[in-house]
Amino acid sequence: MRDVAIIGVGQTKVGEHWDVGLRHLALEALQAAMADAHVTRADALYVGNMLSGELTGQEHLGALVADFAGLRGIEAVKIEAACSSGAAALRMGYIAVAGGMADIIFVVGVEKMTDTLGPDATTALAMAADADYEAAQGISFVALNALLMQRYMYEYGYRRQDFAPFAINAHRNASHNPYAMFDFSVTTERFAQAPMICDPVSLLDSSPICDGAAAVVLAPADVACTLSSTPVRIAASAIGTDALALHDRRDPLVLDGARLSTQRAYEQAHVTPQDIDLFELHDAFSIMAALSLEAAGFAERGEGVRLALEGEIALDGRVPIATMGGLKARGHPVGATGIYQIVEVVQQLRGLAGENQVVNAYRGMAQNIGGSGATVVTHILERME
Amino acid sequence: MRDVAIIGVGQTKVGEHWDVGLRHLALEALQAAMADAHVTRADALYVGNMLSGELTGQEHLGALVADFAGLRGIEAVKIEAACSSGAAALRMGYIAVAGGMADIIFVVGVEKMTDTLGPDATTALAMAADADYEAAQGISFVALNALLMQRYMYEYGYRRQDFAPFAINAHRNASHNPYAMFDFSVTTERFAQAPMICDPVSLLDSSPICDGAAAVVLAPADVACTLSSTPVRIAASAIGTDALALHDRRDPLVLDGARLSTQRAYEQAHVTPQDIDLFELHDAFSIMAALSLEAAGFAERGEGVRLALEGEIALDGRVPIATMGGLKARGHPVGATGIYQIVEVVQQLRGLAGENQVVNAYRGMAQNIGGSGATVVTHILERME
Repeated sequence: MRDVAIIGVGQTKVGEHWDVGLRHLALEALQAAMADAHVTRADALYVGNMLSGELTGQEHLGALVADFAGLRGIEAVKIEAACSSGAAALRMGYIAVAGGMADIIFVVGVEKMTDTLGPDATTALAMAADADYEAAQGISFVALNALLMQRYMYEYGYRRQDFAPFAINAHRNASHNPYAMFDFSVTTERFAQAPMICDPVSLLDSSPICDGAAAVVLAPADVACTLSSTPVRIAASAIGTDALALHDRRDPLVLDGARLSTQRAYEQAHVTPQDIDLFELHDAFSIMAALSLEAAGFAERGEGVRLALEGEIALDGRVPIATMGGLKARGHPVGATGIYQIVEVVQQLRGLAGENQVVNAYRGMAQNIGGSGATVVTHILERME
Repeated sequence: MRDVAIIGVGQTKVGEHWDVGLRHLALEALQAAMADAHVTRADALYVGNMLSGELTGQEHLGALVADFAGLRGIEAVKIEAACSSGAAALRMGYIAVAGGMADIIFVVGVEKMTDTLGPDATTALAMAADADYEAAQGISFVALNALLMQRYMYEYGYRRQDFAPFAINAHRNASHNPYAMFDFSVTTERFAQAPMICDPVSLLDSSPICDGAAAVVLAPADVACTLSSTPVRIAASAIGTDALALHDRRDPLVLDGARLSTQRAYEQAHVTPQDIDLFELHDAFSIMAALSLEAAGFAERGEGVRLALEGEIALDGRVPIATMGGLKARGHPVGATGIYQIVEVVQQLRGLAGENQVVNAYRGMAQNIGGSGATVVTHILERME
């Protein structure tokens, strides 16, 4: 096994891209990453995507994106793990380079959620839950998260308002990220008045439905320095899983898949939570951010929200999260999100995060969650010096 | 890179399984493979599947199958490459074991095409074609294959009837395979009278819509002999791609993706077509069988059908194909097919193919095709002695 580095990153602006399709979004991100890495060929292309079939009538994205990007003939497949499809695709690329099967690999995460043919996005997203025992009852992802948030508030005594810092932090950071979907700021007053979607989850607890693509170029670490002036090493790559259905979990308020995934990543990188300079977590809903902080060891059980209330999730806090806007404000094109997180950690480690720069960022962690915690993919990235 | 072996295989009977769901099919195949390999744990589970979202409203099969199989917590993802999803999942498992990332890996291919929620199977299958430029015009997979077959007949002077040997051979072999969907035999007369689906593709040129799952257990070759008395080595694993849309191809009657994929496999295994004792090819339609034989080097351009007419595709022919019934008669539960092919080659190499045994089978090739040739996954397996 050899070390693997990221030598190029690219992304499209997240938003409602009514004028372009899946292949165009993927191409734009891929071309940006290829230009950043100064490479034009690869041994394989792995595409992370969840809903291309349901929403746009297109499966078979591996070969499609490969051909459209001028890479006809190359090995190409799509990886799906619900909302963690992007990071799962990166993991497959990491395994191929680390094991010596490939030298250069392109990984692109892409999702097109507007201008759809089939079911609406909310119905399609419910396919990440247990179709027979959850979705068949009519429950959506917002509702599943509402159950978790309700239970969290009941068990630990928080008010709805206590979750405001997650949205405020994400929107503040997104306002300085030109690739983010939203550039408006959120205040505690605005949060309090946000339209309710599924009590207690309001509009400002929720990430938006949107389109986007992000891409990275992987290479063996030992040649990365000759190819890039700012390579970033993948110090850990891990997946942990759990039951899909909330009612099948050991404890709905403990993300066991995230605990497993994070623990495996810490072991691989030989680090502890204290060594992580920033944490791009999966804040699809505020409650997921709180539970992720706890599962990753940054807060005790029931203390994730307190960490946010104490300001520790800000850029200068103990564990900066959503540093470029997170899922909440950069946007959450589901199968692309895991790669956006990686692109943003790389920007931080390169010192190119502008107004959002975490000072002296040396090691960042990205965690991409599928379903309400059933697949959790964690990567730890480090600056190479 | 180390050698990888298959130490266990399992499969469900292919058919219309109205009484069970995706997870049950996957479990049955996986448990059979685990029992065959005498292992109960793995480092990862890779699931090959194409249409679980569209047809049964369930994405996120990696974590779902892992949990249902008692493997909660394990690394698990789904791999999609249209009808070549099964073999693509095997390739991901192969890469992980060959590179040293994992020791034991479970790979399961599963598809549930009856009792569906969403679009009919024909509409869903068209998602393997180019959604914007082919499927949007209303063309189905049968129609795409009819275009190819029509052109093939026109260019090389064959009659529809000349394709009969493919169906006759597949059905003869399926009648001795207890896991096959069909046990009736086909004669030239019956082929001639088969209902026309899309001229010149008749019912007996087409593989059926059905349900099924197949699974394999992978291990490093050097320990395989201690775990299994009949391990089979994966001598080659390769993917080649092409444009999705027929009109974008260099030449519609040449499967460039298959040529690339097969060539890469031959190079890895250091063999030529003459060294292959049996070839489980992707006979989703008769024309695909003919084009595959040509792309893999068993026949010159336009001679694939002649090879069949001359009896060379039979069990005692020059290149036995569909030895357990093929896609045509064993059945084609799309995302599972690639693993069924592997299971069948393993049976042949173990000498357990019964009435269908290819004498002295030492090396078999399996080729799984996505779309009308846009993703082609080839594996070459060898007996270990």
